[in-house]
Amino acid sequence: MYTRTVHYYETDKMNCVHHSNYIRWFEEARTFLMEQMGFGYDKVEALNILCPVLHAQAEYRSMTRFGETVEIEAKILNYTGVKLSFSYTVRDKTTKALRCTGKTEHCFLNEKGKPILLRRVQPQLDLRIRAAAEADSSSNGQPSSERTC
Amino acid sequence: MYTRTVHYYETDKMNCVHHSNYIRWFEEARTFLMEQMGFGYDKVEALNILCPVLHAQAEYRSMTRFGETVEIEAKILNYTGVKLSFSYTVRDKTTKALRCTGKTEHCFLNEKGKPILLRRVQPQLDLRIRAAAEADSSSNGQPSSERTC
Amino acid sequence: MYTRTVHYYETDKMNCVHHSNYIRWFEEARTFLMEQMGFGYDKVEALNILCPVLHAQAEYRSMTRFGETVEIEAKILNYTGVKLSFSYTVRDKTTKALRCTGKTEHCFLNEKGKPILLRRVQPQLDLRIRAAAEADSSSNGQPSSERTC
Amino acid sequence: MYTRTVHYYETDKMNCVHHSNYIRWFEEARTFLMEQMGFGYDKVEALNILCPVLHAQAEYRSMTRFGETVEIEAKILNYTGVKLSFSYTVRDKTTKALRCTGKTEHCFLNEKGKPILLRRVQPQLDLRIRAAAEADSSSNGQPSSERTC
Repeated sequence: MYTRTVHYYETDKMNCVHHSNYIRWFEEARTFLMEQMGFGYDKVEALNILCPVLHAQAEYRSMTRFGETVEIEAKILNYTGVKLSFSYTVRDKTTKALRCTGKTEHCFLNEKGKPILLRRVQPQLDLRIRAAAEADSSSNGQPSSERTC
Repeated sequence: MYTRTVHYYETDKMNCVHHSNYIRWFEEARTFLMEQMGFGYDKVEALNILCPVLHAQAEYRSMTRFGETVEIEAKILNYTGVKLSFSYTVRDKTTKALRCTGKTEHCFLNEKGKPILLRRVQPQLDLRIRAAAEADSSSNGQPSSERTC
Repeated sequence: MYTRTVHYYETDKMNCVHHSNYIRWFEEARTFLMEQMGFGYDKVEALNILCPVLHAQAEYRSMTRFGETVEIEAKILNYTGVKLSFSYTVRDKTTKALRCTGKTEHCFLNEKGKPILLRRVQPQLDLRIRAAAEADSSSNGQPSSERTC
Repeated sequence: MYTRTVHYYETDKMNCVHHSNYIRWFEEARTFLMEQMGFGYDKVEALNILCPVLHAQAEYRSMTRFGETVEIEAKILNYTGVKLSFSYTVRDKTTKALRCTGKTEHCFLNEKGKPILLRRVQPQLDLRIRAAAEADSSSNGQPSSERTC
């Protein structure tokens, strides 16, 4: 579980974390998850593959304050070989109060910015993501990897 | 139309604007629109009313680079007296290439953080938003204000 | 020692951490130090005392990349009862390569935004900072607390 | 003169602009000045020359609030052919109240990250910066360009 404290500079004049920062926290938790699953962002980019965000969304449930610590659970929601999506749940570490939920969807681009079929271009990376998606899915009780290509 | 250049600090190592910044740009365009419509954010907060974000989402269509200028169209999507939602379209100013679209949804809170019915608590502000929503709607050809309370 | 990884959103198109973020890292390390010394920022603000930055500076020595982990040493540089200053040293956690050094200076304001003499208004907090400044100084071999008021 | 409004996301829980953002505003004003002087950042980087920050500092004089507009004057402070430094003055647009002053110092690197002597590598760019430094200096009544190489 990815855990982090709230930084002062992340608050706004409403005395809570500015909503844009949750999108950044999702990235932190996603990076952490990918690292743990053996396909860290830096490793992916070392293969000259970019993994940009196609879609991001967040539902804000309650305010996070300076001085609090949150835990952010990232999970693989779906992997098609072309697109990869994640879900996120942000909770207060102490009270477990729900702060925010969200999703992001990503594709894979080569160094020329062209979308790639990971299975063909990087079969090892494809297998690793597929295995991770299935592991996440079995702990979810929901299918999170489906083959479309 | 809200127009702004891309700042260097808004780019990331992928050589384009980091996706979280579009959520901030939406806020800039929304603030600009509310100001133009006569209910600027600072005026709303001067009434001890907060207008936090309940939901935000963005669809990333193409990358925005440093040195480019974008125009961001914000519109009122819906106003119910309790909730207010906006849509956003980010385009390159020169080529009109679509960069990003998105939505946000907001509620209104009093100084104690309790949701309020704007029509009862601030009827003048309510009327102004309602008028703005209808004006936006007629230019849209779509209803953007509906009374639910 | 305060340790943290580099986030993707902290990089810029120069493929390293944007220089403004070190100022934010200084704040993180300062918050961590104050917490450890028993006068956490949230405790200070709970006394209705603000501790704004009067001066900040940074010397950038080498670039920090995404995927790296840095350790940031914050120390109390000086405490006069009216002003409090800190020094910072950012190093790569693995190689100990120097990334950045810096300083910040702060004062104390009451809820009306007026500068206060901490010794008179909050003698306990004053004593705690004084003790911390002296402890830091003895480990430095340099005086870091001097009484001017 | 570079002018901009304060964005909501730039404020912090102290109800004013977070101090780190002035470092970003300096960059905005510097980019604007370089553009106006005919050597925009994007043009510099198109020559495969990076212009990283070696040093940055800021003196915070008074708080900037959401809803305010500031004007930021950037000037070339010194140009040696190897290093280029700027000064900044941030004022409230309406009241001209002083908000912040600061300085940054920069060098020039080639695509391999090696410092370069601009006069030798890009004599045209060198001349343009030199002319700009002298123009700024004559309006300052102070020498702002001095040849050291």
